[in-house]
Formats: sequence, structure tokens, C-alpha cells
Amino acid sequence: MSTAVSPLAVPLPALPPLAGVRLSAAAAGIRYQGRTDVVMMEVAPNSTVAGVFTSNKCPGAPIDWCRTALKGGKARVVVVNAGNANVFTGKAGRDACAETAAAAAKIAGCQPKQVFVASTAVIGEVLPHEKIVAALPGLHEALSEDNWEAAARGIMTTDTFPKAATQTALIGDATVRITGIAKGSGMIAPDMATMLCFIFTDAKIPAEILQSMLKKGVDATFNCTTVDSDTSTSDTVLLIATGQTKHPRISAADGKSGASRMLSDFARALNDVLLDLALQVTGDGEGAQKRVRIDVTGAKTAKSAKRIAMAVANSPLVKTAIAGEDANWGRIVMAVGKSGEPADRDKLSIGVGGVWMAREGAVVPGYDETPVVAHMKGKEVEIAIDIGLGRGAATAWTCDLTHGYIDINGSYRS
Amino acid sequence: MSTAVSPLAVPLPALPPLAGVRLSAAAAGIRYQGRTDVVMMEVAPNSTVAGVFTSNKCPGAPIDWCRTALKGGKARVVVVNAGNANVFTGKAGRDACAETAAAAAKIAGCQPKQVFVASTAVIGEVLPHEKIVAALPGLHEALSEDNWEAAARGIMTTDTFPKAATQTALIGDATVRITGIAKGSGMIAPDMATMLCFIFTDAKIPAEILQSMLKKGVDATFNCTTVDSDTSTSDTVLLIATGQTKHPRISAADGKSGASRMLSDFARALNDVLLDLALQVTGDGEGAQKRVRIDVTGAKTAKSAKRIAMAVANSPLVKTAIAGEDANWGRIVMAVGKSGEPADRDKLSIGVGGVWMAREGAVVPGYDETPVVAHMKGKEVEIAIDIGLGRGAATAWTCDLTHGYIDINGSYRS
Repeated sequence: MSTAVSPLAVPLPALPPLAGVRLSAAAAGIRYQGRTDVVMMEVAPNSTVAGVFTSNKCPGAPIDWCRTALKGGKARVVVVNAGNANVFTGKAGRDACAETAAAAAKIAGCQPKQVFVASTAVIGEVLPHEKIVAALPGLHEALSEDNWEAAARGIMTTDTFPKAATQTALIGDATVRITGIAKGSGMIAPDMATMLCFIFTDAKIPAEILQSMLKKGVDATFNCTTVDSDTSTSDTVLLIATGQTKHPRISAADGKSGASRMLSDFARALNDVLLDLALQVTGDGEGAQKRVRIDVTGAKTAKSAKRIAMAVANSPLVKTAIAGEDANWGRIVMAVGKSGEPADRDKLSIGVGGVWMAREGAVVPGYDETPVVAHMKGKEVEIAIDIGLGRGAATAWTCDLTHGYIDINGSYRS
Repeated sequence: MSTAVSPLAVPLPALPPLAGVRLSAAAAGIRYQGRTDVVMMEVAPNSTVAGVFTSNKCPGAPIDWCRTALKGGKARVVVVNAGNANVFTGKAGRDACAETAAAAAKIAGCQPKQVFVASTAVIGEVLPHEKIVAALPGLHEALSEDNWEAAARGIMTTDTFPKAATQTALIGDATVRITGIAKGSGMIAPDMATMLCFIFTDAKIPAEILQSMLKKGVDATFNCTTVDSDTSTSDTVLLIATGQTKHPRISAADGKSGASRMLSDFARALNDVLLDLALQVTGDGEGAQKRVRIDVTGAKTAKSAKRIAMAVANSPLVKTAIAGEDANWGRIVMAVGKSGEPADRDKLSIGVGGVWMAREGAVVPGYDETPVVAHMKGKEVEIAIDIGLGRGAATAWTCDLTHGYIDINGSYRS
């Protein structure tokens, strides 16, 4: 596999401490040598938690564990390992989760159902969870509010750079912070699409409100990105609120509109963090050389627009054309058509890099190809598709499909 | 682009004359130089015709033309060009079809609606149909019952070998023949999936019976194959019966069961021809080095089994693993799960090359990897998936995803 860093990599932002969160990473030798591969994240007592998981029908054992734990609405510890996904491992996999959670709970002084676990990498091999359990005391000892980068690095698998994002938001006149880390670069697709993403805030927000905000945010960000249309068996987004910063009280009793009015800036910041992380994941798509943004307008409905955008984002022919720096709008027409969504060829318009190349069912005579060619040579490619039928709009993000993807996945059991 | 012949190529079979069919090919210079690119196929008066076309919502002008012409149920001439798909070409595209059909009809002495047209290759460029019209008199002059190979070669685009299949069948005690030619190697996906395929028989079968047999046959063959999940805007399968061989009369009045009893051997032979051609198309998948057969059993329904088989066949991660000769059954589990069809991880079994590697939700302890490794090095890879829930079964075919696909599609406007 290639070890070159993605050309779309971004520097890790400064990640100040977030009240109520301490992190640590250790090398437990799960699979990789000479690097950290187990991460512990401890949050303050009474922290609330929301989670969104893969829609894959064959989820890993950690997904089952987290879904059950989530019912309690409270979190104290998150334990993550890279190098083994603990997927399709039968009873041994379930036991690995339960025993890891029990051991972590004992050390942290909480209940096992307040421990969340996540694992990624190889499917079908029994997780050597005794290595994780053995690492837990050292991890607990090493917990620090300054270890964000170590945590972001410890959860990486085929990632070529660590991924994090942070934002502040106002609740009333109190400033709270939202910080997230993520990993993932292949087996990434819509329908609950991310690999692993852990987001923390020092705000105090009831679990049910947190859950509905997370779901809404993920739908518009992670679920609009794709690397290869393959939906992982391990996808997990957790959002944990430590409640360590004083601000006007948010209560489920405020009703939906009351809470959402008070949390409007928080929701904006949360979505910024989610989108930032989703784009970092897409930008580290296996073999990616270019990031692609697809804006669909004029569809019958927003749902239809999203399906069209994702059909284009998942088309191997569109993605290889972009890798070849060819603004092959014919392939975009094909992908719109194969989505199965309402579309009328004779009302369809396609633009690349701000230039409409095809308008209402035919090529624009004598359009200027020069700016299009220049745009295709850049690292960020923008495709505009107007369906011409209604007011539905959506945006999707993907990356190009290159030799790098074949190299990584054809020669490496990841 | 690579010009190497696919390792999965098969020699062209001997193609004896078929009563009532004459063919010819010419070099009209549509796009390619130094090769034939326009084909004429003339059939006897009163030949009946059936057709199945792309489900893509942005079909090419020739698809619209053929759908209308098909209503008449009769064919005299088929004109096919390679090098330009006549898709997304607006009024100019419609005019190109109408004028080509009018010119061919005049030469052949039939009505324009008995002329079928098909075009493939680049999307969005106006078809220089005057070059086709100019070639028609020469094509008509050159028509011969011995030109099957010339026709199979003249319709190729990125194909690395010409594709044909022939079978005989008994209707009563009369022997009839079915011969088909096909082209296609990319933008190939389910849901009415083929590029171009033209099948002829000397049997005499009413158009409505022909249509229902073709639809059924295509669903079980071409619609179960995929190269890259991209559904072409030009997909066309035509089946033409010239009625030149005497056999017991087939009439719509026989009723469905009467006709199907008399045509059972014909249906078997037709499906053999369709499957043979579909596998040749898959075996010429852009960049393909291996053909992959995916057998799904134990699904809730046959429909569910087909969706699962196609999800596996379309997974870039499964296809790159096969290219890397890695029997990575974890990725197969992932693809089963992402299909969204009913599946229970703990009842799922996965086999490769006849060896069950995973049984009922976990790896088979100590399974023998040696025959699996040997199987993966071969040109034909077989994957068995048992869902363990019901009796639904289906088979899908695909090819591996290699650097060749990226080469062809990242550097060539096809």
C-alpha cells in the first residue's frame, strides 16, 4: 500500500482542552507494529450521549454493543481500537465487547453500559481483546485533556492523515465548544456513512435532543459523502455532551421549537464540525487525488436530488473521468439517468467549474472549454446539475477513482 | 488505452448462414480510422421483432426511435454505428435517427418504422449521420449471409474481441437456429444491462411471444451481469425472427402455456445464447482479468437473492480484492449487509472456490486455505453465499476491478 499522504490532507487544527474530556492512546499490538492502536476517551460523570450507526445489515459486534448501551443515554468511557473490526466473529466478538467494557468500567468506576466500544480494520478475525484489556490501566493512567492529537492518530487505519475539527457556539451568552475526531478512508458510502467519528461538547444537552440533532446533522453531511459506495460494517458517530459549561438550561420540556431556538447556533457549529470531518474523510479517500462536490438543483424533491447527487458521486465512470481530468459531461448525464429518479433529458443542464457545458438536453454550442480544462486540473472539482423539473436541491461529496484505490485494495487486506 | 485482448476472450464460434438474414459492414469514418464502424443487417419481409432497452432515464435518441418502431412488431433493417452514441443531442439526434431510417427504408424497400437504429460510444456529440446515409448504398450492395464476423467486429467500441453465439433448437421436429452478436465492455450494469446485442432466428414466432421470451431471458442473463454498475444510455437487445424455416405453427391463440410448451427447447437455446453473450461482455469488462460468478442461496425470495448478488458484484472492495487474488470474505459480508436485503449475520455462510470459509456468522476454524489460494489465481472465480433464511436463489456475474479500468476510463473519452 502507498504511504504517501493524500494531496487533499489538511493540517490538524489546534485542539484546546474541552472541559470534561480526557484522552490517551497506547500501542497494544492488535495488528500494526510501531504505532498506537488503542484509544481511551473518558468523559465527566453524567455526560449524555447520542449515536448514529451503520445501516449495514451485517454490523460488527461493537455496533450491537453500542446500540444497546445507547439506550441508557449516558457515557463515561469510549474505547477504540484500530487493526481489527471485530465483525463476523460470532460469540467471541460479543464476549470481546462485554469483557472490554467490564474491564474499562471497573477502572473508570462506572457501569459497563456507560462504556462505548468501537473497532475497525480487518473483518472476520477474532479480536485479541485481552491485549486491549491489558492496555486499559496504562491508558487510564495516561488520560490527559491535551491528548486530542494522540487520539486522532491512534484510531487511524488506512488513513494518511489524522482528522479533527473544532468550533465554538453560543448558547444564550455562554460559549461552548464542539470538538470531533474521525477516521476512515475506504468502505465509505451513503446511508449512515462514516467510519468512526467521536464528537464532544462541554454543553449540557439531554440525550434525546442530542440524538435528534446528531441524526439531522449526519444526514446532511456524512450521509452525503461517498468514497466507493461500500457501506462499512463498523460505521459509528458518537456525540457526547459533558455538561461542564454553564449556560441557559436546555430541557426536553422546552419542546422541540424551544430547544431548537436556543440551540440554533450550536446546531450550526455541530454541522460545521460534521461537514469538516466528513470532507476530511472524503479527502483521504483511498487513492484520492481530487475532491468532488456535486450540486444538484431543480429536482422534483430534496430526496430525489440527494439520490441523483449520490448516483453521480458513486459512478466509477464519472470518478475515473475526473481522475483523468476530463470534464466528460456525457458520463454525468448517464449517471443522472441511472439514478432512476425523475429526470427529463431535454430539460437537463450540466456545468463544471461554473461553466454550463450542456443546457436543456444538448451541448452548449461553442462554450468556452479553457476555464473548464483549468478547473479539472485543480484539486477541488465542482459539478453542477440542474434537473429543470422542480425545486429539490442537494449536495454530495466524493473523490476521484485512481490507480491508488486499486493499489490499496488489491494488495492489502485492510 | 490498452489494446491488449482480454484474458477472458473466447474465439469467435463458427457462424453458419441463418435463413433470412444478410449482413454487411463498412468504414464510414464516424470517429475511428482504419476500421469498420457501420453495420447493416437486413432480414426477410415479415420478420417479427422483440426488443429490450436501457432503463436509464436519459436514453439516447436511437432508443426512443426503436421503442416507437417496436410497436409495429416488424423489422426489415437494422443499422448500427460505433464511435458516437447519439445521446443528449437534442433535436439533431432525433433528426439523425429519422433521416437514417428513411434512407435505409428507401434502399431496402420498406417503411421507416421497420428500420431499427443503434449507436454507441461518445455521448453528447452530434452524430454525423450523413456519413451513415452515404454508406448505406454500399452496405446494401455488400449484404451477404456470410458476414456475421464482419458485423460482430463493426459494432465494437472499447471491446477487445468480437462477441457472438449460436445455438440450434427443436420446434416440433424442425430444427431452427438462433444466432446473436453483441458488443460492450464498460458502462455495464443491471436493470436492463447490455450494450448492444442483436439476435436472429429463422423460426416463425409472433412478436408478442418473442417479446415475452426475450424479456424473461434478459432478466436472467444480461440483467444479472455488471462491469461497473453504470447503466448505459444506449443498451439495446433486439431479437428478430425471420420465419424462414418451416415448423409447427406458433400462434398467440395457443395461449401462454401452449406456446411455451412448443417453444420450451427454443427458450432453452435462446437463454443459452443470451447467457453466452452476456458472459462474453462481462469477460471483456474494461480492464477485466478475471470473471466472477456469485451464487446466492437461502435468501428470503429470489428477488432478494438477486439484489444481494448484484450488491456483491458491484462492490469495488470485493472486485479489487479479487484483482489482488485475495479471498477477502469479510468484504463479501460487508457487501451482503449493504444490500439492505434481509440477512442475519449469524446465519450467513461464505464460500470461495467450493470451500466454505465462514459458516453461520463466524470463520470456519482451520479451513483449508490451499485450494482457495489456488482458485483465486485462476481466471474464473466462484463465490457462494448462503443467507440461511429461505429458499431464494440467484446468480450474478461480474469481473474484477483492475488498473486497466482506470487506464481505459481515466485517459480515454469513450
